[in-house]
Amino acid sequence: MTGTERTRRRVLITGASGGIGQFLEGRLRNDYELVTQGRTPRTPEQEKTLRRADLEVYAEVLPLMEGVDTVLHLAGAASPESEWDDVLNANIVGFRNVLEAAREAGVRRFVFASSNHAMGMYDRLGEWPVYSHQLPRVDSLYGVSKVFGEALGRFYHDEFGIDFLALRVGWFSSDPTETDKEILRAMWLSEDDTEQVFRCAIEADTSYGIYYAVSDNHNRRWDLLNTMLELGYRPRDSWTDRVEQPEARR
Amino acid sequence: MTGTERTRRRVLITGASGGIGQFLEGRLRNDYELVTQGRTPRTPEQEKTLRRADLEVYAEVLPLMEGVDTVLHLAGAASPESEWDDVLNANIVGFRNVLEAAREAGVRRFVFASSNHAMGMYDRLGEWPVYSHQLPRVDSLYGVSKVFGEALGRFYHDEFGIDFLALRVGWFSSDPTETDKEILRAMWLSEDDTEQVFRCAIEADTSYGIYYAVSDNHNRRWDLLNTMLELGYRPRDSWTDRVEQPEARR
Repeated sequence: MTGTERTRRRVLITGASGGIGQFLEGRLRNDYELVTQGRTPRTPEQEKTLRRADLEVYAEVLPLMEGVDTVLHLAGAASPESEWDDVLNANIVGFRNVLEAAREAGVRRFVFASSNHAMGMYDRLGEWPVYSHQLPRVDSLYGVSKVFGEALGRFYHDEFGIDFLALRVGWFSSDPTETDKEILRAMWLSEDDTEQVFRCAIEADTSYGIYYAVSDNHNRRWDLLNTMLELGYRPRDSWTDRVEQPEARR
Repeated sequence: MTGTERTRRRVLITGASGGIGQFLEGRLRNDYELVTQGRTPRTPEQEKTLRRADLEVYAEVLPLMEGVDTVLHLAGAASPESEWDDVLNANIVGFRNVLEAAREAGVRRFVFASSNHAMGMYDRLGEWPVYSHQLPRVDSLYGVSKVFGEALGRFYHDEFGIDFLALRVGWFSSDPTETDKEILRAMWLSEDDTEQVFRCAIEADTSYGIYYAVSDNHNRRWDLLNTMLELGYRPRDSWTDRVEQPEARR
């Protein structure tokens, strides 16, 4: 083991078989010592390395935390249409297990993939802009579970001192032109910006916060100020560049 | 049945075998047609009438809602020291069952006994005053469950139109001198003020809100303005009157 390797942070990615999880595994593996958890391996690499712990069973979660510096918690029911039982089991029981195991194991930092849907009812009602200091106003049971996660995380930070950063992650996609829904485009988070904001969340000199994570789309309705100030995030992509400008040139 | 009786609202009190539940049953029975739910009968009257539905089982909850106009949801783990399993089962699963059954049955209004502990970390850190428009900052797993309940209730109001009023109920006691903890005295809610604020919550011409419910204690740290403006609450008691003034006269 070289000196460089000894100082690399060990990062646990839960939900590593999901879209963002797989993507981050590829982008972060050169700089961090990764532990990945998921249900179904998606790559030959994951066939060998993916830890298939059931996050709803605490005893299976704790061993994942050995030596871990930072948890990127991406696991859970990911659709705003999720039914109550899925939300309850994956996003409430499972989330709490991962956070509690991180605390028990002395993990330094917990990064939680929260969602715009924690505030989605403002969007549906057209009450823009939305700031992270506004009260939660969810549009779904999925959104309720994100509010639960943010509240539990703040408690764990205040009570036990674990760093807790919630990223309200927008619409992750390699190509914003694959939808014509304005709301999705407005919350587009490009691959490069996804990589950047998660790297910021691992490394930033801050210990608690709720941060919107979207690209610099001209019609975004969600405040990025604290994401830029506290995490050092500088979004470099915008769906406007990819969609509007070529049209304007016609 | 007289005309007067026909127009009385049917009110379901969950957790009617608890302290506030028993108290409200006595104070409200002349004006409302009460249905009471609880685990263990506490009075000869409850021996005959208490419905012992297990709130963690949805099929046992729905029948409680027949003809109900307003639910006063007092059931649940009531201590800030509650363990996770109790909070999960009673305050998350049980609460959701009662709210969902109310929606399914077409109940007009849901009054939720929330708590100061949804914001208890502000209290612990001395960050006063506390307003209901501030972000949740809990001091316990119990507090997290209250944030969950408020978020789910707001969603049910926005999505399904059911009235949802959360009362952040202070320290219910007939006698504020039974403690010498300043924080408890500051959040004291007298019997008469308890009766009044729940009556307001049943009858007020408002459909959604989060309201602090404490007596008019001179050192209260929680804003009562919207409770007074929107619910018409006029607290008549203060522990100051009962404790400080007699001392001052000495």
